[in-house]
Amino acid sequence: MSRNGVHARVSPEGSLEILSSKEVNQLKDDGEGGLYHLFRQCALAVLNSGTISDDSKAIMETYQDFGLALLQQPRGIKIELHNAPPSAFVDGAMIRGIREHLFSVLRDIVYANSILATAGWYNPERSEDITNLVFQVLRNAEILRPEHEPNIVVCWGGHSISRDEYDYTKDCGHELGLRGLDICTGCGPGAMKGPMKGATIAHAKQRIDGGRYIGITEPGIIAAEAPNPIVNELVIMPDIEKRLEGFLRAGHGIVVFPGGAGTAEEILYLLGVLLDPRNADLPFPLIFSGSKENADYFEMIDQFIRNTLGDQAASRYRIIIDDPEETARAMNEGMETVRDYRRYSRDAYYFNWMLTVDPIFQTPFEPTHDSMRALNLSRDQEPHRLAANLRCAFSGIVAGNVKAEGIRQVEQHGPFEIEGDPEFLEPLETLLDAFVAQNRMKLPGQSYKPCYQIIEKAE
Amino acid sequence: MSRNGVHARVSPEGSLEILSSKEVNQLKDDGEGGLYHLFRQCALAVLNSGTISDDSKAIMETYQDFGLALLQQPRGIKIELHNAPPSAFVDGAMIRGIREHLFSVLRDIVYANSILATAGWYNPERSEDITNLVFQVLRNAEILRPEHEPNIVVCWGGHSISRDEYDYTKDCGHELGLRGLDICTGCGPGAMKGPMKGATIAHAKQRIDGGRYIGITEPGIIAAEAPNPIVNELVIMPDIEKRLEGFLRAGHGIVVFPGGAGTAEEILYLLGVLLDPRNADLPFPLIFSGSKENADYFEMIDQFIRNTLGDQAASRYRIIIDDPEETARAMNEGMETVRDYRRYSRDAYYFNWMLTVDPIFQTPFEPTHDSMRALNLSRDQEPHRLAANLRCAFSGIVAGNVKAEGIRQVEQHGPFEIEGDPEFLEPLETLLDAFVAQNRMKLPGQSYKPCYQIIEKAE
Amino acid sequence: MSRNGVHARVSPEGSLEILSSKEVNQLKDDGEGGLYHLFRQCALAVLNSGTISDDSKAIMETYQDFGLALLQQPRGIKIELHNAPPSAFVDGAMIRGIREHLFSVLRDIVYANSILATAGWYNPERSEDITNLVFQVLRNAEILRPEHEPNIVVCWGGHSISRDEYDYTKDCGHELGLRGLDICTGCGPGAMKGPMKGATIAHAKQRIDGGRYIGITEPGIIAAEAPNPIVNELVIMPDIEKRLEGFLRAGHGIVVFPGGAGTAEEILYLLGVLLDPRNADLPFPLIFSGSKENADYFEMIDQFIRNTLGDQAASRYRIIIDDPEETARAMNEGMETVRDYRRYSRDAYYFNWMLTVDPIFQTPFEPTHDSMRALNLSRDQEPHRLAANLRCAFSGIVAGNVKAEGIRQVEQHGPFEIEGDPEFLEPLETLLDAFVAQNRMKLPGQSYKPCYQIIEKAE
Amino acid sequence: MSRNGVHARVSPEGSLEILSSKEVNQLKDDGEGGLYHLFRQCALAVLNSGTISDDSKAIMETYQDFGLALLQQPRGIKIELHNAPPSAFVDGAMIRGIREHLFSVLRDIVYANSILATAGWYNPERSEDITNLVFQVLRNAEILRPEHEPNIVVCWGGHSISRDEYDYTKDCGHELGLRGLDICTGCGPGAMKGPMKGATIAHAKQRIDGGRYIGITEPGIIAAEAPNPIVNELVIMPDIEKRLEGFLRAGHGIVVFPGGAGTAEEILYLLGVLLDPRNADLPFPLIFSGSKENADYFEMIDQFIRNTLGDQAASRYRIIIDDPEETARAMNEGMETVRDYRRYSRDAYYFNWMLTVDPIFQTPFEPTHDSMRALNLSRDQEPHRLAANLRCAFSGIVAGNVKAEGIRQVEQHGPFEIEGDPEFLEPLETLLDAFVAQNRMKLPGQSYKPCYQIIEKAE
Repeated sequence: MSRNGVHARVSPEGSLEILSSKEVNQLKDDGEGGLYHLFRQCALAVLNSGTISDDSKAIMETYQDFGLALLQQPRGIKIELHNAPPSAFVDGAMIRGIREHLFSVLRDIVYANSILATAGWYNPERSEDITNLVFQVLRNAEILRPEHEPNIVVCWGGHSISRDEYDYTKDCGHELGLRGLDICTGCGPGAMKGPMKGATIAHAKQRIDGGRYIGITEPGIIAAEAPNPIVNELVIMPDIEKRLEGFLRAGHGIVVFPGGAGTAEEILYLLGVLLDPRNADLPFPLIFSGSKENADYFEMIDQFIRNTLGDQAASRYRIIIDDPEETARAMNEGMETVRDYRRYSRDAYYFNWMLTVDPIFQTPFEPTHDSMRALNLSRDQEPHRLAANLRCAFSGIVAGNVKAEGIRQVEQHGPFEIEGDPEFLEPLETLLDAFVAQNRMKLPGQSYKPCYQIIEKAE
Repeated sequence: MSRNGVHARVSPEGSLEILSSKEVNQLKDDGEGGLYHLFRQCALAVLNSGTISDDSKAIMETYQDFGLALLQQPRGIKIELHNAPPSAFVDGAMIRGIREHLFSVLRDIVYANSILATAGWYNPERSEDITNLVFQVLRNAEILRPEHEPNIVVCWGGHSISRDEYDYTKDCGHELGLRGLDICTGCGPGAMKGPMKGATIAHAKQRIDGGRYIGITEPGIIAAEAPNPIVNELVIMPDIEKRLEGFLRAGHGIVVFPGGAGTAEEILYLLGVLLDPRNADLPFPLIFSGSKENADYFEMIDQFIRNTLGDQAASRYRIIIDDPEETARAMNEGMETVRDYRRYSRDAYYFNWMLTVDPIFQTPFEPTHDSMRALNLSRDQEPHRLAANLRCAFSGIVAGNVKAEGIRQVEQHGPFEIEGDPEFLEPLETLLDAFVAQNRMKLPGQSYKPCYQIIEKAE
Repeated sequence: MSRNGVHARVSPEGSLEILSSKEVNQLKDDGEGGLYHLFRQCALAVLNSGTISDDSKAIMETYQDFGLALLQQPRGIKIELHNAPPSAFVDGAMIRGIREHLFSVLRDIVYANSILATAGWYNPERSEDITNLVFQVLRNAEILRPEHEPNIVVCWGGHSISRDEYDYTKDCGHELGLRGLDICTGCGPGAMKGPMKGATIAHAKQRIDGGRYIGITEPGIIAAEAPNPIVNELVIMPDIEKRLEGFLRAGHGIVVFPGGAGTAEEILYLLGVLLDPRNADLPFPLIFSGSKENADYFEMIDQFIRNTLGDQAASRYRIIIDDPEETARAMNEGMETVRDYRRYSRDAYYFNWMLTVDPIFQTPFEPTHDSMRALNLSRDQEPHRLAANLRCAFSGIVAGNVKAEGIRQVEQHGPFEIEGDPEFLEPLETLLDAFVAQNRMKLPGQSYKPCYQIIEKAE
Repeated sequence: MSRNGVHARVSPEGSLEILSSKEVNQLKDDGEGGLYHLFRQCALAVLNSGTISDDSKAIMETYQDFGLALLQQPRGIKIELHNAPPSAFVDGAMIRGIREHLFSVLRDIVYANSILATAGWYNPERSEDITNLVFQVLRNAEILRPEHEPNIVVCWGGHSISRDEYDYTKDCGHELGLRGLDICTGCGPGAMKGPMKGATIAHAKQRIDGGRYIGITEPGIIAAEAPNPIVNELVIMPDIEKRLEGFLRAGHGIVVFPGGAGTAEEILYLLGVLLDPRNADLPFPLIFSGSKENADYFEMIDQFIRNTLGDQAASRYRIIIDDPEETARAMNEGMETVRDYRRYSRDAYYFNWMLTVDPIFQTPFEPTHDSMRALNLSRDQEPHRLAANLRCAFSGIVAGNVKAEGIRQVEQHGPFEIEGDPEFLEPLETLLDAFVAQNRMKLPGQSYKPCYQIIEKAE
């Protein structure tokens, strides 16, 4: 395959990158502490955005000959590519959106590393410092724009959805775009791409030139959910927890479309944060939206939430079925609430400083067979802590499904084991079975082999 | 219905309009020589672009209460609307693309009238003056852009096409857009809209900010084929012949997708002009493109052309089936040929001065029962003249199908009669029957009642 | 001298010019009805802007070998120049501001001619049509900008002033610019250039990118008062009366600096229009401003106005001495009055439709020995008519000083004769003598030979 | 005086500033390690730019009531000012250029501090790290622009010069600007302001929108040499050595106009760096330019350099007298040499990585009575080291003249003592005497009391 790979030399356009000699050397360094491997892996993911596959291991194998080199040039850095995926090119020239993504990867890896590795102020154990890191990476990527009123709608949902579900996300994006709202997703196909396409057409109709299609990703997920070239502001957060915090701090409201385990993880993360008593008064527009066929799906999610986290959690969202216009209208009204609240509290429009994110939501959860089994999935804890633990369970399942490291572990040691109260694990198992039955765990056409098994706690 | 009509006051944004008191008065004047009726009719069409109907009479009836008034304001003209179609608005605010169209209508009606009514130099009988008028209307609408290399691809094809055909035109637009090409169509749904949508997404991927989606229309057709709001440069030519000349002078190449009688008319017009011996050496990229299902359709068109105009006519176009990428690549290469030829001949990139358009293609053809029957459809004439007459025949059929005046005549006096050599009318009849069978004469879901009948010439 | 002339080929940049074949031919035509001679003469003036001389005849003679040709090119028109003044170039490349002026000349000559020569609606005897012509030429030159609030300050004053007077105009321009006001003058050196220079620096300090430096001129005066390259919007009106009307319709207030006969002409024109009873209620900010040394000068002008036109005329202006800041502040307040009045009256900000300009101010005055002697300079007429006649007297004197035709007539037939009531001519003679004494009739260093003589009316 | 001070609240416009809560707190902190005092001092300097005084102590005393506070707002940071200098305002609104400077001060203080105080990689003893710091501060200030070819001309010269000298620097700036060159100076009046004014007018004539007027300053000098509001890119380097390195790394060539001790310091610094054998092949256009009256001055400088550093040092510059056009033309040609050399060496256009700056030029020199007397001013050292020591001598003299700390020391302990070989100190004394005689040590109108005395070394 790599015989067909493209050799090319690309220069940044748009947001030009200026690197110091020191930074260039770090990116070239493929030893311990060097950034080459990380850079190569994310670059390949970005270049591969045209191909539909969520198996990051497979991608890496297909392009094992892929390589890149940095060249210092009078007008700045150029990148030389070897055996790059042809789908990134049109008649020999790289699609400009993809070229921009390549340099966004470069920018964020260099910048995040400069803080993680050398900043004296940064203590990875301190909640305040983590939030500050999220702030700085977003600011450096120019995602934070003081001149804008709140209008960033985060769209979450599955990357593996049906054509009808996809069209529904597109229609919602169109209605959001007609109202001048911008879209932020986690990148990738499906519900991550549909709203951006719809909004692109709507922004064209409304003559909105600077429409924003923000993608927030992280090195572990980018290969499986590569950014569509429409994404015109891409930021790579250091890890999944900072990515999730990024959505909550930079976005002003969230629409959740149907999805699988990843979507469930995101819902639990979000509800966990919102259930924190310190966030009780904070407005945060949250809508679950789907086509007529998805009515059952959201009924199921709603039940699961009520059964585990209680009715108070359910009061934080609204379910809208088969009505893109109402979805957009409600979100638009939510934006006004957010604007008024921030103005009243004198908080920034562009970064949600007032939201409290508890350290349990900031600490990276590394799914291993041990950590997965150790999760406390019982009722004897506050709802937002339960949400945090449930979220970790789903996080592990996502890793076992699509992340290189997770897939490897499951291949070696068999499925992850999840342990808890029987009465309590039932709703979880029901939900997961439904996801499998609805083909939400993998891309269509592949058969799904579960990466987890549920074990009732021995009393 | 009009009870639901919207009352609104809109001001121009983007291309602001400055009118003199004299011009405002003409637009308000609903008497003989005044422009109010023309303005109202085009404005209604533009506002109605969301609704899918190609029956202009029906539209006019639904909104018979629709009215508009011009208001002089410190910052220029405002337009006050009464009982306007709600589809032009989102939550009470007019879609900006539609608002721009409204002011394009204003601009072109005022400007064209100033020439037609008062310019001393304009003689409607003189070919040179007609071309000059086409030039001036396009220039005034800022369609002519000297800074651009040739890249305007005119897309023709039916407004009433299947979902698959539509998707194919979108894919072609996407590939054209990825190559930096701009789209020009005659406005309306179907093959007029698909390429623009595809190109919009592709331009977003290529970060092309000023992508051009040019619509060229005329008062008689605009109601049936309203401009989609994506169209970001709209020009209203005074009549159908000037509109067709506009396509040829401002466009740099043409892709024809499957269509009905209107598309056939356009093909015949174009081949007629290109067959003029004075245009023999002029490059003019022309591609007939369709999905696998359309292979037969283009085979049929090809046969009809070879049977009537001869093989030389067929050498002017290339047929590409089921290959959007190749369609775009071939068109892109054609652009280079055009550029080289114009550079060599020192002719403008933005206006095809060197093309000869014979007066027979410039003179408006008014389809009546008399004029239709008088058409010379025999072989005893040069091919480009035969093409001209065939084109008039199709023009009459289009009028009988969708234009207010044509529909009225057929309602009053029965179908138009077309007369000619039997051996020669056969291919024509075959083609028309196929159009009817393939549902190409009307929007899906309506049954078609032919507006013509073919009569063999008495020897 | 012309041996040192530059040969160059220039293309438009910024506002690109698209001409039809017909228009190109008119510009090339050096016969009767052709535009070549007019174009050549204005082009030469524009190119000569670096050289300080107000003797247009001398300029024409120095560059009698100068010539230009139009070339049709793929990207539009180019102009080929022969023996062009070297001061228009820097190291072989034409200064871009001058290049833009060249194409403004082209644009306005073609456009004005298309109306004057062929527009059916235009009757040079009809006041309304003249105003409409002024409107259309300004609109075509894109001087009228609906998005702007009133902020155009017209600055009048002498082109031949002292260094201190010049610095004072620069300081006033600086203060106007700091307040975001734009400058419009008649082009040329001295009081026409100082305010623009000052405003340029002030706009830089205020980070105003689109600062406007509008020059309104006409073919007869352009050679003597060539536009400084800072002028970034140049318009060539067909004749001096339309130029003066242009100032009043497009400008929102006027500052008059010290000057000579030309300035007196402009003051009389303006007061004449404002004294028209139909304009009695119209706000029109008018300030006479000068340095301490100019206190006497304005005292003298004030006396002359009170003596001839009466105290009511004097109530229309305010005299500010030695205070650029107050000049700018007062003008800024005047802008608000204008804005409020226009908003209240629903009149356009960008064109003063409500101002009445009587035909006596619109009809070109051609100064000859006969017409000069025939002027009615007696008190037995309404003040605004007297102002009109006085203005003609000064117009003739300006022509005799600096215009090619006027200079020729005086060379042939001796000085113009001005006749009137003795008691009334006295103030006029006093004023003119003062102008001569203060060196305001010619550039410094040349001795002035009066082109007029005052003759007391035989009773 | 402060009773007239202005109270105002200003928000950033143009380059908006986004600060984290942590950064805001540092700026508010007026204790040890806090940034409030530094911020206040630089802010006051910037606000005071209208007033002409180079006595920073006097300024601080006049505005001892001046204070500022940071306010977090929905659209970002606002600054609240108390008792601010009225010259920063026009009719109550702050001049926008000054507002931008205020936020540049904010940006650079926060950014430089984040490196100096917390960056793990930064070692103030390591040459490479200092250069990296210079790079990062310039990059963060967006001074480094990869898309530009070399065109930044650094202009050095006195802030206290005659009107004729000032006009000459303006003429040179005009000629540089006509050739599309940008200007970089150290801020302040005189030769720092003239070239920018001239270039502003020239850029307007050439329709260059993004003309760059870069000011590089540092906290110790900013009060005495406040940035003119024309400066549209201001950067505050942490200290004088990094400021000087900034000129050499970001600029592409240098024009030196007549000046006093500060200018001599800069010349010696520059020649010292260029005389480093490792920089022998590096092109660096350097022109000493002055009006006819300055011929003697540059003769004197030239002699001093030849007498102390030798003829080789003199081969690094060219002296141009009374010819702004030739000055600009020569600099323009120099730019091409720089471009070719960088392209050939694949070095960045925007940052002179290849230049070696020896640590002796990077280490801050703190002038005290001890350090001044300890300077080795004898011939027994390499020329570039001698240049370094001579430069320190002048640096001390500048401090004693205009810097708060230096003035204080001289007030307390009497003049600095400079010791060296008699044969060698003579040219130095001659030069200093000439500066005093020519009024180059202070603003005109004040009498100069030397802050140094020269002591012959006891053998």
